[in-house]
Amino acid sequence: MLDTLLQRRTIRKYKGTDIPDEQLNKILEAGCRASTTGNMQVYSIIVNRDEKMKELLSGCHFNQPMVKNAPVVLTFCADFNRFNLWCQLNHADPGYDNFLSFFTAAIDALLVAQNVCVAAESEGLGICYLGTTTYLAGKIIDILHLPKGVVPVTTLTMGWPDEDPALADRLPMEAVVHKETYQEYSSDDIARLYTMKEQLSENRKFVEENNKQSLAQVFTDVRYKKSDNVLFSNMLLEVLSQQGFMNQPS
Amino acid sequence: MLDTLLQRRTIRKYKGTDIPDEQLNKILEAGCRASTTGNMQVYSIIVNRDEKMKELLSGCHFNQPMVKNAPVVLTFCADFNRFNLWCQLNHADPGYDNFLSFFTAAIDALLVAQNVCVAAESEGLGICYLGTTTYLAGKIIDILHLPKGVVPVTTLTMGWPDEDPALADRLPMEAVVHKETYQEYSSDDIARLYTMKEQLSENRKFVEENNKQSLAQVFTDVRYKKSDNVLFSNMLLEVLSQQGFMNQPS
Repeated sequence: MLDTLLQRRTIRKYKGTDIPDEQLNKILEAGCRASTTGNMQVYSIIVNRDEKMKELLSGCHFNQPMVKNAPVVLTFCADFNRFNLWCQLNHADPGYDNFLSFFTAAIDALLVAQNVCVAAESEGLGICYLGTTTYLAGKIIDILHLPKGVVPVTTLTMGWPDEDPALADRLPMEAVVHKETYQEYSSDDIARLYTMKEQLSENRKFVEENNKQSLAQVFTDVRYKKSDNVLFSNMLLEVLSQQGFMNQPS
Repeated sequence: MLDTLLQRRTIRKYKGTDIPDEQLNKILEAGCRASTTGNMQVYSIIVNRDEKMKELLSGCHFNQPMVKNAPVVLTFCADFNRFNLWCQLNHADPGYDNFLSFFTAAIDALLVAQNVCVAAESEGLGICYLGTTTYLAGKIIDILHLPKGVVPVTTLTMGWPDEDPALADRLPMEAVVHKETYQEYSSDDIARLYTMKEQLSENRKFVEENNKQSLAQVFTDVRYKKSDNVLFSNMLLEVLSQQGFMNQPS
């Protein structure tokens, strides 16, 4: 099992074959066994198979081709709506319209998402996460008819692999694991820990194609720019407010 | 594998036996194969085994006994500090001091956390998530010496199981899975979907012991109260600000 986890690859190209309902249900059921805060299960999963719906969603994810080509697209949402309705039905006054509650629900949704990945991959399926969900969350809310109390936090495309990519590079474990307390990095540490990544031929090509001086500049100037981050931060905070998660009078 | 996921239980009581270094490292390495946004790997894991450190951390988690009794405590952090240092060393100007970047890093940390759980459980270990990490994140930052750009988002206790609890109850799958668009719940839906949960003898006992009229009231009035949520929301937003993640001029 450890070996399976160690060998996993993100899959962006899928065969035309569908995922049988029964198999998908089993995967989702296994995924939903992940831990959840106080067993409140404050998340929802939206399953999209319909071509037109995938086309609409694709526009929220920079038109990345995986969205239209995958047989199944799953949007994982922080969801206090269902729990709030239950409270109201039972003469209980829910106090979950605040940032902590959003984050609690987001954790529930993300742990389930990763558990669904492991379940799917153990069945031979391939997955790809879309980090774009938080960029255009407002648009996704409209398309999927998400009510107040519900915010999409991540998206998975899922299907039968039609590619066999190389294992992705990772930083050495000493870069991400700290013993007892956080060990701050010296410049030498940073240079050493990122050397392998910088020297990969695909990354050197990346730097050249973008006319940059360093791989880090490809991230800061092209892929994850400050101006985009600021714009999407404000949009996401606005979405949290609109969905009723920012009521915490100080 | 699906069956293993379907049968998992949270473990809160551990044997005195330690987890060998080599085994823990393998588990962490497998966990770190989870997807990460743009392969930026913007997270860190703090490993605590030291008794005194666990004692200090325990105070941040309402003194839940798992923290002191588990041989290993793992704190998963959203971490842009390492990536920022790499950018600065490479004449790249990082624009990751905003809310979107925090949330991106939190997603990285949470997906790795869940992958570490699956890896640990596949080795026969037991884990328990601590939802309290976001409550007293500021105190954890002090204890673990987390620099600016780093915020703890969840904690796992891990050890060899010394209990064999029943499978936790879960809502029916139809409660959390929606096809194509979100299906809003009628009062009848809610009553039906939560019936099993409400009728469990342990939950009925819970209601009685707390002198409440419904299980929902145990959540709203005792376990996850509005006043606590508001307080901890403000504290968490203050921590995000203090750690440099709230600079998004609108």
